[in-house]
This record gives sequence, C-alpha cells and structure tokens, in this order.
Amino acid sequence: MSDLEIARAAAIRPIEDIADAAGIPREALEPYGRFKAKIDPRLLPDGGTPGKVVLVSAMSPTPAGEGKSTCTVGLADSLARAGQRVMIALREPSLGPVLGMKGGATGGGYSQVLPMDEINLHFTGDFHAITSANNALAALIDNHIHQGNELGIDPRRITLKRVLDVNDRALREVVIGLGGPAQGTPRQDGFDITVASEIMAVFCLARDLDDLKERLGDITFGYTYDRTPLTVRELQVEGALALLLRDAIKPNLVQTIAGTPALVHGGPFANIAHGCNSVIATRTARRLADIVVTEAGFGADLGAEKFLDIKARAAGLAPDAVVIVATIRALKMHGGVAKADLAAPALDALRDGTANLLRHVRNIEKFGITPVVAINRFRTDSQEELYWLLGWCAAEGIEAAVADVWGQGGGGPGGDDLAAKVLAALDRPVSFSPLYSLDLPIEDKIRTIVQEIYGADGVDFSVRALRRLKEIDANGWSGLPVCMAKTQYSFSDDPSLLGAPKGFTVHVRDLIPKTGAGFIVALTGSVMTMPGLPPEPAALRMDVDSDGNAVGLF
Amino acid sequence: MSDLEIARAAAIRPIEDIADAAGIPREALEPYGRFKAKIDPRLLPDGGTPGKVVLVSAMSPTPAGEGKSTCTVGLADSLARAGQRVMIALREPSLGPVLGMKGGATGGGYSQVLPMDEINLHFTGDFHAITSANNALAALIDNHIHQGNELGIDPRRITLKRVLDVNDRALREVVIGLGGPAQGTPRQDGFDITVASEIMAVFCLARDLDDLKERLGDITFGYTYDRTPLTVRELQVEGALALLLRDAIKPNLVQTIAGTPALVHGGPFANIAHGCNSVIATRTARRLADIVVTEAGFGADLGAEKFLDIKARAAGLAPDAVVIVATIRALKMHGGVAKADLAAPALDALRDGTANLLRHVRNIEKFGITPVVAINRFRTDSQEELYWLLGWCAAEGIEAAVADVWGQGGGGPGGDDLAAKVLAALDRPVSFSPLYSLDLPIEDKIRTIVQEIYGADGVDFSVRALRRLKEIDANGWSGLPVCMAKTQYSFSDDPSLLGAPKGFTVHVRDLIPKTGAGFIVALTGSVMTMPGLPPEPAALRMDVDSDGNAVGLF
Repeated sequence: MSDLEIARAAAIRPIEDIADAAGIPREALEPYGRFKAKIDPRLLPDGGTPGKVVLVSAMSPTPAGEGKSTCTVGLADSLARAGQRVMIALREPSLGPVLGMKGGATGGGYSQVLPMDEINLHFTGDFHAITSANNALAALIDNHIHQGNELGIDPRRITLKRVLDVNDRALREVVIGLGGPAQGTPRQDGFDITVASEIMAVFCLARDLDDLKERLGDITFGYTYDRTPLTVRELQVEGALALLLRDAIKPNLVQTIAGTPALVHGGPFANIAHGCNSVIATRTARRLADIVVTEAGFGADLGAEKFLDIKARAAGLAPDAVVIVATIRALKMHGGVAKADLAAPALDALRDGTANLLRHVRNIEKFGITPVVAINRFRTDSQEELYWLLGWCAAEGIEAAVADVWGQGGGGPGGDDLAAKVLAALDRPVSFSPLYSLDLPIEDKIRTIVQEIYGADGVDFSVRALRRLKEIDANGWSGLPVCMAKTQYSFSDDPSLLGAPKGFTVHVRDLIPKTGAGFIVALTGSVMTMPGLPPEPAALRMDVDSDGNAVGLF
Repeated sequence: MSDLEIARAAAIRPIEDIADAAGIPREALEPYGRFKAKIDPRLLPDGGTPGKVVLVSAMSPTPAGEGKSTCTVGLADSLARAGQRVMIALREPSLGPVLGMKGGATGGGYSQVLPMDEINLHFTGDFHAITSANNALAALIDNHIHQGNELGIDPRRITLKRVLDVNDRALREVVIGLGGPAQGTPRQDGFDITVASEIMAVFCLARDLDDLKERLGDITFGYTYDRTPLTVRELQVEGALALLLRDAIKPNLVQTIAGTPALVHGGPFANIAHGCNSVIATRTARRLADIVVTEAGFGADLGAEKFLDIKARAAGLAPDAVVIVATIRALKMHGGVAKADLAAPALDALRDGTANLLRHVRNIEKFGITPVVAINRFRTDSQEELYWLLGWCAAEGIEAAVADVWGQGGGGPGGDDLAAKVLAALDRPVSFSPLYSLDLPIEDKIRTIVQEIYGADGVDFSVRALRRLKEIDANGWSGLPVCMAKTQYSFSDDPSLLGAPKGFTVHVRDLIPKTGAGFIVALTGSVMTMPGLPPEPAALRMDVDSDGNAVGLF
C-alpha cells in the first residue's frame, strides 16, 4: 500500500477529540475542516514546567531516503505508547516539491500525520499567507519607486525577491517593469520558492504576534543609492504584513495514525534559512506536553547545528535529547554502494559509511548533548547488517536502537526500544551550550562551524564575501548568528564527497544579511532557492475522484 | 463608525447556529474557524423546488459608489424580516484591491457579511488555491518546453499568464527564463491578478468537481508553431489542477449582521470574465432557501448581461427578478455634477442622469424581466430629490423603492419597501430569454450586445480582431457566448461618456478564446488585468493589535 492508501485507511478521529485529550480548551481551538485546527496560544491555560524537547536529526541524507519525519512520528507514538504525555512539532510541507517529485513531509508507512493529503496540499493556508505577505511587500517596494521613490531605493540593490510555492525554474531570473512608464521601473529580479522567503524564517522564529511585527519591520529589503540599508519599517508596512499573517501564526493541530497530537507549523528552507518548525509551535507544544518531539531539516551538520545555534538560542529552546536517524542503506551509500545495488548485503561498505554517522554523533556531543542513534529499519536490511551496526555503535559507546516504525507504526512495538533509549537520555543531565559565542566576528563564527562541525581545514572567502563582511560590520550586524547554506549531501561544499571527508576547504561565495530573521546567511557552493520540475512531474499522476478523494498523490 | 468598527461591534453567531437555521446538516459543514464554514453540496439533503433567484445589478458605476453589495445584503435581510427563507450568494473579495484602495466587497454600514475582516483577507483560501493551480499550470507548461517540448508549444504563443492576488503593476510585462539553459527558455510573459485567471472563471461556472475537471482540461493555454490550439488535457494535468481545487470548490457559508445566511464563493473579474459568484454557490443556495439574492459585477450592461447570457444559460439559473441599484449621487454624476459637489441638491442634473438608469431598465426588459429599481439612500440625499426620483420612476412605469439599508441595516425597516416590491415582482410571471442565440456568428453576437444593450450605432473590429474571428471559426469555437470587456463607467468604450450616450461605435481590439470557461472575451478599449497600487496604498494604514484585531482595514 502507498502512504496515501495507508493514510486513507487509517481511523482518523475528530480534531476536537485530539484537542480534548491534549488538554486544549475548546475556546483555544479553531477548526479547519474536521481534522485540522488552529490553536490560539493566548487562550491556553498557564502551563507548569515546560515539556522536554527531543530533537530528531539525521546523518547526511542520500537519495536512498532516511525517513527522519517517519522516525519523528514513530518515536512520538512510541513514547505515547510508553505512557508519556507527548506532542510532535513538525514543519509544514511545501506544495512546490509535492507537485514535482518529493514525497510528502508527513512521515511514511504507519508513522504519518493525518490527514496527509490535506497537509500536503494547502493545509490551513499558512504558506499562502506568507506568499501573500511577501509579494505584497514586493509590490509596495516597486510602487514606492514608481510613485516618486522618496526613500531613494536603488532598484539595482533590492534584495527582497518575490516568491511562489511552485517549482518554477523559469522564474529564477526575470526582468520586471517592462512596457513603459505606466508599468513601473524595469529591473532585474527573480522569484524564490515560498519556503526561502525571509518572511517564512521570521514567521518561524517569532515568539508571538508583536515579535512577528517587530521582526517584519527589521527585514532589510534593499539599499539606497549610497548603500544605506532600508528596512520594512521605513516603508511603514510591517503592520499590514503582520495583519496578513495574524491567523497563519497560530499553530496547526493534527494527529498521527496512532492518535498522537502534532503541531505542524511553518517550514523554512534548511539551506537559505534554519529549517525548523515555528518557535510558536514548539513553545505551545511544551506548554501542553511533557515531551515534545521535533525535527530539523537535512543532516545534523545543517539542521541540528542551526537548531542549536539559532533557534535554541533565539527562543530558549535547548533540547534535552537529540536523536540521529541513520539507515543501513544510507550508510552503505556513504560507503560507496550505488543506489541500485542497495538491496544486497555489503558489510564493508556499511563499515566505511559509519564514518559519516560517527562525525555527526561527535558533533552533537560538542554541544554538551549525548545523542541517541535511531536505526530506521528498511525491509531490505539483513539481520547481519543490523547486528553488525548495533555492535559497532556499542563499541563506539553510542546509544542506538533499531526502529521499525514505518512498517509497524508507532502504535506497535517497533519503536519501543528507541523510546526507552530516549527516555533514558532525557533522565541524564545535559549541559547545553551553543557552538560559538555571538561576540565572535562573523568570519570566525563561520570558521568555527566549518572546522568543528564539517571537519574542514579552513574556509575561503570570495572577494564578494570579503566585501560583504565589511558591510555587515559597518551596518552593525556582526552580533548575529550565522546560517550556513551548504549542500546537504556532504560535510563539505562538494555534494560528491560522501562519508566523512578530510583535507578540504569550504568556499563562502556570498553573505546575505537576514536582519528580520536575525542571522547572516553564508552561501557555499551553489544553493538553489527556486527548484525546477523534473521531466515527469508528479502532477501528471495526480487526480481527484468524483467524491473528492485524492488519487496518485504519492 | 467605520465599516470595520460596525462589523466588530456586531453580535456574530457561531457558524453552526447559522447552518442549523438554514437546514444544513452537520455532516455537510466543514468549519473554518468559528464563523466561516465550507459546505459540501454532495452531503445536502435532496431539496424540493429550487429557490427563486433575485439578481441585483446597478446603473453604470461612478466614483461616488452605488452600494450594490450593501443593497444585496440589505435586501436579503429585509426579505428574511418579511418571513422569507432567504440566502445570499456573493462574490469573494480580491486581496489585491483591499491592500490598494478599494473598500471591502462585503457590503457596508449595517448591511455587511461577517466576519468582514476575515472575508476581506484570506477567507477560506479559495483564491490562494486558484493562484496555486494557475501557477502550477504555468510552471508545467514552461517545464514541458524545457524538457524537450514534445507537444511543440510555441513559446511566443502561450496565452496562459501567471497570476498573483496582489496589485503589482511591475509584473504586467516581464521576461522570464533568463540566466542560461538551466533556467528554461526565455520568453515574454506577464502576470494578471488572480481574479482574471481563466481558472477563476472555470471555477465559477463549474457545476461540480467532475465538470470542473472537464473545464480545466478544456482550457486553451497556447498554440503550437503551426497555430494548433493546445489544451490542458493534452498536458495531462487537469487531474492535478482539480485536486488543488477540490476543497476550494465547496461554497463558503457566512452570515450578515442580521444573521441571514450567505454563501460567499468565487470572484471572477467583471471585465475579462463574467463577474458572478460560483454556479455551485448559487445552486446550493437554491437548494436551501426559497429566495436567493445574488449580484453581478459592475453595471447592468456588463454584469447583468453576462449573468443572463453566460451564467444563466450555462447553469440553468435564469433570475426570477432583477433589481437595479441607483443612487441620487450617481444619477447626479451621470447628469454632469463633479464628485466634490454631490452633497448639494441638483434636480436638473438628477433629471439628466436618469437617462443612464432608464437605458439599464429597458435593457433588462429585453430579456423578458421587468426590473425593480432600488434607490440606495445616502445621508446627503434631500427629500426633494428622493421624491422627484420616485415620481420620475412612476411616470416611466418603473417599479422603485428607496432603501435605507446602510444606515438602518437589513434588520430594521429601511429595506421593507424594497423587499415588498421584490416579492411582488417574484409573483409576476417571467418569460426569460437570452439576448442572442448561440448559433449566431461571434461578430453578430457582439453586434447584438453593442447595439441592443450599449445603444451603439455599430461595432468596429481591429485588424487583429478580424484575424481572431477567422481563427475562432477555424477552431470550432463560434458557438460560444461572448464575454464583453469594456469600461464599466460608460455604455460606450469611452469611460468619459456618461449618461446614455448615442451615436458612438464600439471598437473591438482583440478576441480571447476562453475555452475552459466557455466564452470568447471581446476586448474593447484598454482593459486592466493587473491593477497597480495608488500613491498612498491602504496597506500603510493597516495594522493588527496584540490581540489579533485588525486595525485600519477600511
């Protein structure tokens, strides 16, 4: 059965029942259909001790798929099965990749959040609201220039792009404002996918509506002709943008197949942004549950590092435990096996591939947290490979558990061992500290990440990046954390260097200040902020029947 | 008090109460927050005789404002006050103009639909779903070309534009696909506002999900190099587009300040499209109520003509009564008074302005329906002017009533007289027939509308339009009705010719086949399909307070 078929066959409960069980009062619940609801955090009762946070990350991803969301859902279900009061905090999926080629971002098999089709399509409209706010801002900027340009905006130095939640390569580089004076000022521009919008990052880092408005006002959208940065506040539209987001900012409640409550809210890109669900959702979940299971995008070198250095620091959300998802298949790929050959046992490659996992484990330890490795079981895994990997983990002193949550579902015993190991980890003391101090200069922050986390010899800044470093200093932005934009497939900036490469340098091409989100993006290699569609887009297989049921979604 | 303040002070009831009173079973109701819900027409009980339809139209609009939506709401409230089982069917507002300069499309004063702020912002996300579907289609078209162009799409002859629900003049004319081979094929393109998308028109004319999918498949998105039309069906993505619209297609239930149920659903432009709410909403309302009050965009020369010749014909929705909204202010403007001087009495100008109203009344009679004139009262109207106008109507044999629904609200007696006149009209037999037969050639259909409705001497086709007529004939589209795109301010194609001009010719610049919607658009004069923002956009005054209340929305 496909994920969609499993999801449709599942017994889904009315969202009011899920809310009741989670202790959410009816006045805080705003239903969207029967199985989704927004929660107004202002109307929740004052909680006691905030719940503990379990961050699910992963080894460096491969085309074989690691199942991080599946493990997140399965772990939470298994913790609930063990009697814990648990809640999930996940990112919302982007519609663009859904129509392109990506599977859903709602887990898989029997470890999914429901209703998977609605969550993967428009859900409660949050991303559409962000698209609207972003593009209203863009139109207001171009209109300001058209109406006389009182602020002296340099049309060549507008950094805010328009966005769409569509994979559309033809919009990456465009010229707008053609057609004569009545059509505005011609200029070069481009569209990003909505998840790459700074408004998405702002949305996900804001603590509440007032903080959202402040951060929207802080966004630098461009520069004057003499290169003075210009913020949204100077355009006086942060109130209108916040108004457009006032409902979207409330977290969305859904449920897993096993009935565990999940807040699915926000979804910034894990390259150009920090790749975690909203701070508001994570904080809301901590008020409602004793344990919150959340995830961060890509591998631990990107997602977990940003969670720990950006989100945890900005919102007081240091995790109490970290899980690193690994698979036999991905380890074998990092050990040199091609995707087509993954079904065959290959102990040597498996052993070679552990270098990747080991570096991720040691990296998390540098933050003061001892991680738990979740071995996400696939049907093709042999017993021999699984036992070998468990033995290797034991020899390295790594806590590990095999999790069969795709096939059994979190309602079954497949995740019991992982849940027990995570509960034990939550009982151990944690002395979290971020990797670097905010007082370090930006280039030293980057050097620290690149050497300590990636294992690089050093960092090489382009001429452009060096100029940006000076501008960042001159504009007073040096105290911000760094958000690395790097390929997810390798510790290096070369996606073909798998495993745990050594003796490499990371090349920083450019630095992009995101003053609303509150970080400086460091671009390494080529980073795609508007994906394209494949030769056979998933959209060609999709349909809806006369009763409104989704067909061929995955 | 502003409309927003009146709306916020109103006692709004839970949407379940409104649904219960309207006879909508709970299983057909999908709440979106507390005061909005979608209705699944498939889950409604089989009705008896469908309700009667009252179409509210207007004289030619002026900058003074006619209050057509206000009268629609007020009339329905007054009919409910008279003991009738009534339901409203209205268009959804577009977000672009809301951020620009336009007031809401939710009525005004005490004749509004609630919650006005939510309806005017993202509502239930229908327009966002349409934007997504349109832009997914656009991306799939450009991707098809990029991946080898098996269909032989001519990039110079793609007629489907991308859309955004933003007023953004800088996107009217753009060049996309720049940046080299990896970024697709460069070509000239442009963005329309979402309400101008053919998908919006298709959405509003579809009878159900299956019909929607058929019509989506029928959309002509461009031509091959040898000018053969290409449809969405040939691209094999009508299923994916229908899937993206499967929830949006369900009508939205809200309430008036007086508690009358209203279906607010769909909102095609009244120029490039037919300007009426969805067929599904009107049909659903007829199953639930004895009287359905609905409206059509702009004046009766555009909105009513299209309702009667396109929507009524396509969906079997001939109205049982037509109301034409007029105001003393608008009549005086058509009689030559400037907007700044409208507060002063001006009987001569009022008399001259009646020529505009009279032509609209006689036009409706040509469809076999005797209209009722609603004189929408403004505070500046003098008793003398109102009495003179009522006397003039009587002398011309026109049924007319003064309606004070803005100030009193439909819950008060201000609309009682209008409601009584409409009820009397509903008791009279109607012998509706469309203005023209579908068997006429396209140019004769246009000539009929232009001469019979606009009062023109004739029609002049540009060289381009003449070429299009041949193509339309060759492609077998001559049997479609015509959708006129003309300035709303004048019967002619010159917006400065007020009143009831004579001795003019209408110039048809271009003809655009909309084979999914099922009509041929005839462009006269310059028609704006992407508005711009004004020097001081409304967005600058908007805000949201810490409790999430909208500020400065209108």
